[in-house]
Amino acid sequence: MRQLGKPELAELTLGATLLGNGGGGDPALARLIAEQAIDDYGPVTVAKLDEFPDDAQLVTVGVVGASTAIVEKIPAGREFIAAVRALSSYLGRKVDGIMPVEAGGMNTLIPLAVAVELGVPCVDADGMRRTFPQVEMTTFTLGGISASPMSLADEKGNKITFEAITNQVGERLVRGSAMMLGLANALASYPMTVAQAKATAIPDSLEYCSTIGRLLRAIQRRENGAWQEFLEFTGGRKVFEGKIIDLDRRTTTGFARGTVTIEGFVDPTCTMRIEMQNELLLAIEDGLPVVTPPDLICMLDHDTAEPVTTESLSYGERVTVLGLPCAEQWNREGFLDVVGPAAFGYYVDFAPLNGTIR
Amino acid sequence: MRQLGKPELAELTLGATLLGNGGGGDPALARLIAEQAIDDYGPVTVAKLDEFPDDAQLVTVGVVGASTAIVEKIPAGREFIAAVRALSSYLGRKVDGIMPVEAGGMNTLIPLAVAVELGVPCVDADGMRRTFPQVEMTTFTLGGISASPMSLADEKGNKITFEAITNQVGERLVRGSAMMLGLANALASYPMTVAQAKATAIPDSLEYCSTIGRLLRAIQRRENGAWQEFLEFTGGRKVFEGKIIDLDRRTTTGFARGTVTIEGFVDPTCTMRIEMQNELLLAIEDGLPVVTPPDLICMLDHDTAEPVTTESLSYGERVTVLGLPCAEQWNREGFLDVVGPAAFGYYVDFAPLNGTIR
Repeated sequence: MRQLGKPELAELTLGATLLGNGGGGDPALARLIAEQAIDDYGPVTVAKLDEFPDDAQLVTVGVVGASTAIVEKIPAGREFIAAVRALSSYLGRKVDGIMPVEAGGMNTLIPLAVAVELGVPCVDADGMRRTFPQVEMTTFTLGGISASPMSLADEKGNKITFEAITNQVGERLVRGSAMMLGLANALASYPMTVAQAKATAIPDSLEYCSTIGRLLRAIQRRENGAWQEFLEFTGGRKVFEGKIIDLDRRTTTGFARGTVTIEGFVDPTCTMRIEMQNELLLAIEDGLPVVTPPDLICMLDHDTAEPVTTESLSYGERVTVLGLPCAEQWNREGFLDVVGPAAFGYYVDFAPLNGTIR
Repeated sequence: MRQLGKPELAELTLGATLLGNGGGGDPALARLIAEQAIDDYGPVTVAKLDEFPDDAQLVTVGVVGASTAIVEKIPAGREFIAAVRALSSYLGRKVDGIMPVEAGGMNTLIPLAVAVELGVPCVDADGMRRTFPQVEMTTFTLGGISASPMSLADEKGNKITFEAITNQVGERLVRGSAMMLGLANALASYPMTVAQAKATAIPDSLEYCSTIGRLLRAIQRRENGAWQEFLEFTGGRKVFEGKIIDLDRRTTTGFARGTVTIEGFVDPTCTMRIEMQNELLLAIEDGLPVVTPPDLICMLDHDTAEPVTTESLSYGERVTVLGLPCAEQWNREGFLDVVGPAAFGYYVDFAPLNGTIR
């Protein structure tokens, strides 16, 4: 176990923003929530899965909704505790640890605040090693873990607990309720034992996020070899550099959806189109899929190397588009049904960045 | 307490269909569910509120959704028991009695089936003494009783439990989830003690429904004085007789909505327009409101005096439109906010049929 204090939050936040794939809300805001919690309750205890007994009870907690709504209807904080308490009460079990559902976006940092307030460790593991827009899109689902029961809470005191027969149905139910509650709510989900998490989670998530943050900071400081070190660590590559020439965004069916089109610096007749559903999900260059889910699309400001979120995209902005291979834990029978292109309604084949069809 | 068997269901079903105000699903279907339950478990015990101890635990149960969906996605039956069990478990309390939420439509008969299967009495009281389309539209709400916690269940095994801060918010949440689950689901709601029910419920609902059924049957048999007896008992009157000349129906925002226009027999230039939201809610004759909620609009086939449901309405059909004053228990501070014209978005004043502005 280790103690995580306010100084460590800077790199973690930067890494979480990059791994947010343009969505996942604004981690800078979640950092403020985590800082306030550390001020109030002291440093956060972060623990690896093997530091818990196998029968310890974990739950995940985070914000659910449309990224467009989450940046406007700012979380109050108390809805996250309310969601975990509602789930714990429904389960009739004390919660022994809080786990991030995703390593990326606000939901990497919110669990820190919740864990320290509840006086339990935050688990250094997650179910995505990136962000995804839908509740069921986790390695937990792939490993047969139910997201239910799960509890949704808002800042006003409304609470809803779901028992869905599949995680896909659960997503639809949570989405329907979140739409009625303003599309920026707290969800406590995936109650599981540590033994179940060991079998299905992606380990060392916070550590990974912090490393990404440190490597990206070096790029921003234009240190020698920083790009090379980042690309070697992540296994990723730059897939496009250019200027945003078209932007179409709308909040519909409970998500921020849209398309961004980028014109190449080198050859302006060459364009990349990126499809969004809260996150950047599918990159098409001149009609051909270049990055497909579950691989990651990350967008940086071309000049400052600051990660760009889909809410802050603007016409004429100069950007660098990165493709990063997804975590190897996704390499498991059935993963394309959970997070492949078809799971988002894109009728293209998965074209893995690391070159091996899994 | 009295025992209610299959023979008594005929008049009760007819009365419930009339008091369904055109909506509330098809009571004939609920009668089949109740008959099956009586075959399986024996006659239903029906009890008055004063036959329970004051601290006995009651819950209401019924179908929620759009009347158009309810007649197509026929209830399986087991979702009602599932909803009550989910709510009982959430409350951590055994349920001592099942109460109809409305006296009218399927939801008058479904509680009989649930009560007999659970081995508890069905309470002879309700919260509307008619049907209304929305969860919060009850004398319970008017009396300050929370509809929450409430549990929604479908026939597949999905269960959702809501704790809403107001009954109006609860309606929105239930509606959103029901839309995701096919708009014909079971809802157990309004957990309350018998003392709370005594203070807020409308008593003798099943008895009233059966009487209405008996009086209407006499009209259908063209017995002498039958119309007069019916109108004296209900305090109602015939407000229009004519032929349906226009019909506009759609299922939207979780409800069956629409408008029906009727041309008068006597004077074809005289028309009545009736606005529907699951139920027949507002009757306008030549531009003037004639029946306004919470007063009842009931439609009968002109020739057979069979109640007509909004799903079975057809172009050219000859109908009699009745207006019946709402139950006197609605006459309480604040009722127009809960069930007056504005609660449905109709910007007309309440024009009480019994002539007294309450």
